[in-house]
Amino acid sequence: MKRLLIANRGEIAVRIIRAAKDLGIETVAVASEADTDAAHARLADSVVHIGPSPAAKSYLVGETIIAAARESGADAVHPGYGFLSERASFAAAVADAGLTFVGPEAAVIEQMGDKVRARQVAMAAGVPTVPGTTDGVDGVAAAVEAAREIGYPVMLKAAAGGGGRGIRVVADETELTKAFPQASGEAASAFGDGRMYLERFIRSARHVEVQVLGDGTDAVHVFERECSLQRRRQKVVEEAPSPGIDDRIRAEMTAASVRLCKQVGYRSAGTVEFLVDDESGEFFFIEMNTRIQVEHPVSEWISGIDLVAAQLRIAAGDPLSLRQADIVARGHAVEFRVCAENPDKNFMPGPGRIDQVVLPGGPWVRTDTWLGPDSRVSPFYDSLVAKVIVWGDDRATALARSRRALGELVVSGVPTTTGLLLELLDQPWFAESRFNTGTLEEWLAERAASAGGSR
Amino acid sequence: MKRLLIANRGEIAVRIIRAAKDLGIETVAVASEADTDAAHARLADSVVHIGPSPAAKSYLVGETIIAAARESGADAVHPGYGFLSERASFAAAVADAGLTFVGPEAAVIEQMGDKVRARQVAMAAGVPTVPGTTDGVDGVAAAVEAAREIGYPVMLKAAAGGGGRGIRVVADETELTKAFPQASGEAASAFGDGRMYLERFIRSARHVEVQVLGDGTDAVHVFERECSLQRRRQKVVEEAPSPGIDDRIRAEMTAASVRLCKQVGYRSAGTVEFLVDDESGEFFFIEMNTRIQVEHPVSEWISGIDLVAAQLRIAAGDPLSLRQADIVARGHAVEFRVCAENPDKNFMPGPGRIDQVVLPGGPWVRTDTWLGPDSRVSPFYDSLVAKVIVWGDDRATALARSRRALGELVVSGVPTTTGLLLELLDQPWFAESRFNTGTLEEWLAERAASAGGSR
Repeated sequence: MKRLLIANRGEIAVRIIRAAKDLGIETVAVASEADTDAAHARLADSVVHIGPSPAAKSYLVGETIIAAARESGADAVHPGYGFLSERASFAAAVADAGLTFVGPEAAVIEQMGDKVRARQVAMAAGVPTVPGTTDGVDGVAAAVEAAREIGYPVMLKAAAGGGGRGIRVVADETELTKAFPQASGEAASAFGDGRMYLERFIRSARHVEVQVLGDGTDAVHVFERECSLQRRRQKVVEEAPSPGIDDRIRAEMTAASVRLCKQVGYRSAGTVEFLVDDESGEFFFIEMNTRIQVEHPVSEWISGIDLVAAQLRIAAGDPLSLRQADIVARGHAVEFRVCAENPDKNFMPGPGRIDQVVLPGGPWVRTDTWLGPDSRVSPFYDSLVAKVIVWGDDRATALARSRRALGELVVSGVPTTTGLLLELLDQPWFAESRFNTGTLEEWLAERAASAGGSR
Repeated sequence: MKRLLIANRGEIAVRIIRAAKDLGIETVAVASEADTDAAHARLADSVVHIGPSPAAKSYLVGETIIAAARESGADAVHPGYGFLSERASFAAAVADAGLTFVGPEAAVIEQMGDKVRARQVAMAAGVPTVPGTTDGVDGVAAAVEAAREIGYPVMLKAAAGGGGRGIRVVADETELTKAFPQASGEAASAFGDGRMYLERFIRSARHVEVQVLGDGTDAVHVFERECSLQRRRQKVVEEAPSPGIDDRIRAEMTAASVRLCKQVGYRSAGTVEFLVDDESGEFFFIEMNTRIQVEHPVSEWISGIDLVAAQLRIAAGDPLSLRQADIVARGHAVEFRVCAENPDKNFMPGPGRIDQVVLPGGPWVRTDTWLGPDSRVSPFYDSLVAKVIVWGDDRATALARSRRALGELVVSGVPTTTGLLLELLDQPWFAESRFNTGTLEEWLAERAASAGGSR
């Protein structure tokens, strides 16, 4: 690999350029009209202009990206995250053009992108999935039998339904025996089909994900990340290791993730996502992301492993040089996503020109950003402006340092979520890691309510 | 410790403020007239103005600093490095004022500041010192006997001499037998005293130092730093661990340093400096610095230990919570000192207003600096503007990343040594760590000569 085209923008493009430079690989950026002067375009060795600002007309046009790679003499393409990163057809087109795609094979992307097939592969690899019926169940007796297998609480869903209609949660057999005929009757009259799916209902769960690296033959894990703090399914704060699981679950979950990798001959960095049931402590496979994640830096910091460099090396054909026993976690890392949004106006994005930027510095802090002198936050792209990553030898130390680091961050000219992240650091439930996937939104709702009309 | 006055300026004042914030300690900065808007004054919770810009009229006036501490309600004083940090009388005056001095007791500072006493303490602790005679030697026979003990090559110095006059280096007994009467005769006629000191001559040496932490009773080391790359006795690049010593020397040197700490009941962070003889591999005590060093970040990065926080905790009376077995080194860290000097004009300092600053970011890089928007490099103080610290899992990786990090650094408006540091990264002797304490100056001399009149 001599010259790498980075098919992305923003902080992840900058991140990939840095890894390539460290490895002595030349870099080619692509830039839309809005990004002509963007950081990734300035930092790369060369830049190809790929058209209008809307991503659908530039960053999402696979043919344009591949043409740019050919034109610039690149021999490899890194898709970053988002955009084309999980489109199997793009990965295939890159390979067909004689270029190296930095990611797994198109067939693996496709397999993992299909939720039903991904679940089947997980089951085949002995990775726990949310217990449930694979087909619709007809009649109370069959439902009771299925529920005994699944374990309560159980969720009933119309096999023919959709959009959450007719979903019921039952706590035990008595409730099921009573609810099933009603639900099934409703489904029969609404959809002409009374069959019901049964699935374990997880009242309270954490989102925990395992970082993996595979070379097609061998695979290792780089521990897990806690990603339960989400708003509208977007992660807001991530950390490694997860404060919500114990060593037994950690060992089982990471082993299951490595099995899944080996099962599909996974070749790149990837993430296996799980729900961890707060009540039972069981964990269940949700999906596998076949790309680098926004939150990869927390894993990098605790392990000392450069995940993007690892992706590049694997894509270049190097076998995995890491042995699992050599991958050792040290301390605790937390990532805060700073977005150009106004948390007091329902997170309305605030594009515009940045007046002043002061990034946090000194010990135990890493900032990944595309912000620079005279940056503009464009309305065309997502609002992430910086990731502030902080390390400590334990979680409490990392959080104390986070307060200092976020306190140093100055981004003026656009609204940001920095103040909200500082407020979050003051919440006892966060400090004590008493949270699940719903906690952040509950807190935001309370916060908005208590502020009344002023927010 | 509730409120800490930082009796310093520049990057080390910023560094100390950050550590204090992490520990929830309020900070008081002191600022001379030139530093009214300086970064340390802006970052601290409050600031006391202590007078005119020349350090002799502000940062070096102990009474003014102590008055500022009292006035601001501070209960402790951190001296940083340089300025008052190794003045025993200042440490004593701070204690007399009922304040906590963040450093060892005045008596220990005094002991270590006196080179003869420091050498005696080192010998008492079984720490190797440069072999030599403690008294003047009279006559060839006595000289030959002393030299057998010391080991060749041996340096002859007039006991009554000074300024390097009459110094001779002899390689063996034949040379000594011939040279001694001449040298002694010259000394007798010049100073009226023919006695000579004999000392082992170290032709080629590395400067390696050991970071220690003591609480008055217990002591640990945090590995060593390689600091051979110096210009006019100022370190330019430092790294940890030292690429120039093996595990046996490392073990002996760190153990010797811990013995020295325990011998004096050392209480704070400190550094024990050694010369390592390139030929014999022996190491010899030079001196102990009783303060935090400029290059402490490289030790912090490989160990995960915050040395400034450790200083504050020890000063507050906490016993050392670290056990030696828990202090584990990971990877390799390198620090580059960026100075506002023109390396092509004999390192002439270039004070002035900074136009633009872009600090390196992303993974594996830490920047400690006082540079900010509208900073001014003042002619009154030293020219260090930033320390760029880079980590890698091995030295080659750290150096590759260093090239990227220094390449990202932009400081315009004043000359800097950034370009020179990038040139240094291209030197095979640096990459292969074939250097001693003289190498950097030899390279600079060659560089100046080859540039002819243009430099």
